[in-house]
Amino acid sequence: MLAPWRSLLSSAIHRNRSKPHSRYFQLATVTPEGYPANRTVVFRGFLDDEQNRLKTITDSRSTKIQDIEYQSLAEVCWYFTKTREQFRITGSLQLVTVTDADDSLQQARKTTWQNLSDSARSQFAWPNPAQPAADKSAFEIDPPDADTPLDNFCLLLLTPKKIDHLQLRSNPQQRCWYILPSDQTWITQQVNP
Amino acid sequence: MLAPWRSLLSSAIHRNRSKPHSRYFQLATVTPEGYPANRTVVFRGFLDDEQNRLKTITDSRSTKIQDIEYQSLAEVCWYFTKTREQFRITGSLQLVTVTDADDSLQQARKTTWQNLSDSARSQFAWPNPAQPAADKSAFEIDPPDADTPLDNFCLLLLTPKKIDHLQLRSNPQQRCWYILPSDQTWITQQVNP
Repeated sequence: MLAPWRSLLSSAIHRNRSKPHSRYFQLATVTPEGYPANRTVVFRGFLDDEQNRLKTITDSRSTKIQDIEYQSLAEVCWYFTKTREQFRITGSLQLVTVTDADDSLQQARKTTWQNLSDSARSQFAWPNPAQPAADKSAFEIDPPDADTPLDNFCLLLLTPKKIDHLQLRSNPQQRCWYILPSDQTWITQQVNP
Repeated sequence: MLAPWRSLLSSAIHRNRSKPHSRYFQLATVTPEGYPANRTVVFRGFLDDEQNRLKTITDSRSTKIQDIEYQSLAEVCWYFTKTREQFRITGSLQLVTVTDADDSLQQARKTTWQNLSDSARSQFAWPNPAQPAADKSAFEIDPPDADTPLDNFCLLLLTPKKIDHLQLRSNPQQRCWYILPSDQTWITQQVNP
């Protein structure tokens, strides 16, 4: 059975589909120093209907890798500008690297790579991120092979444990929590905005 | 002298002004348990040109207050959908409550309240946030006095220490860091995206 919030999130994605930015959300992590970090990432769909894992991609050279190794709990803030609703999604992150031994995850990593555009794949062949700026020519490269992911290409999966859904358009605003306790049955709780 | 990133951010705000959501950004904090928290807040302008403090508002009943008391360092992620650029703004948060002894901050708190809409002011008279949903009638209230802020109304100021500006539209993408060391002179560093 799908989680009770899945249809609401899918509906928001659908109703905001005219805006390409509606597939972007902000991912907050904690750095090894205990500070917050926050950046925009692209939603690449759900991996499964059992754990409702949200799929994004990342580069093994990204500094967020250290954050995830230190603290796997993350919070996504996904604001839909057209329908004026926010999903805060708390959950644990899982990195799927080139050395991951799970066949189905490795297959998902490969398929996701194949579905990227040439320009998105090329970014994984760019010079090291967050290093002093390289010459422009270092970015003028042929797109990498479309079939086999580069070694630094990773899937980044978020398994949700709590959703906080806020609808600003309702009068009064509607806010609802969806919480997954250890027995794995979602609890729904309407709360004040 | 204005910080070197101020004109870039002001320009982004100006060029995206047709989109009301361009004044919203995502604020990440760390909870007392050491977990990340992330939510959308509304930019209410700069407080000053010396410290470049970004102004937002919050309710003293909000759970983010505990986060700030535990760890004042925060990271804003501000993505501008029209110009396709992102500002990650790392800095320390300062809460201005009804008991703050600083006259100029107390005046800023009052002016900010006066500039809100009735509907924004009313939210501070709503039932306690994040509690089990109250009856709809509890939200049907007369707007509070427009001159004197309610006691639970707070300013929340962010003093930037590092800016990470990413421009997706450039070819190649442009990324630049602005860092404020202890001698209070901003350093600019072009880095790889």
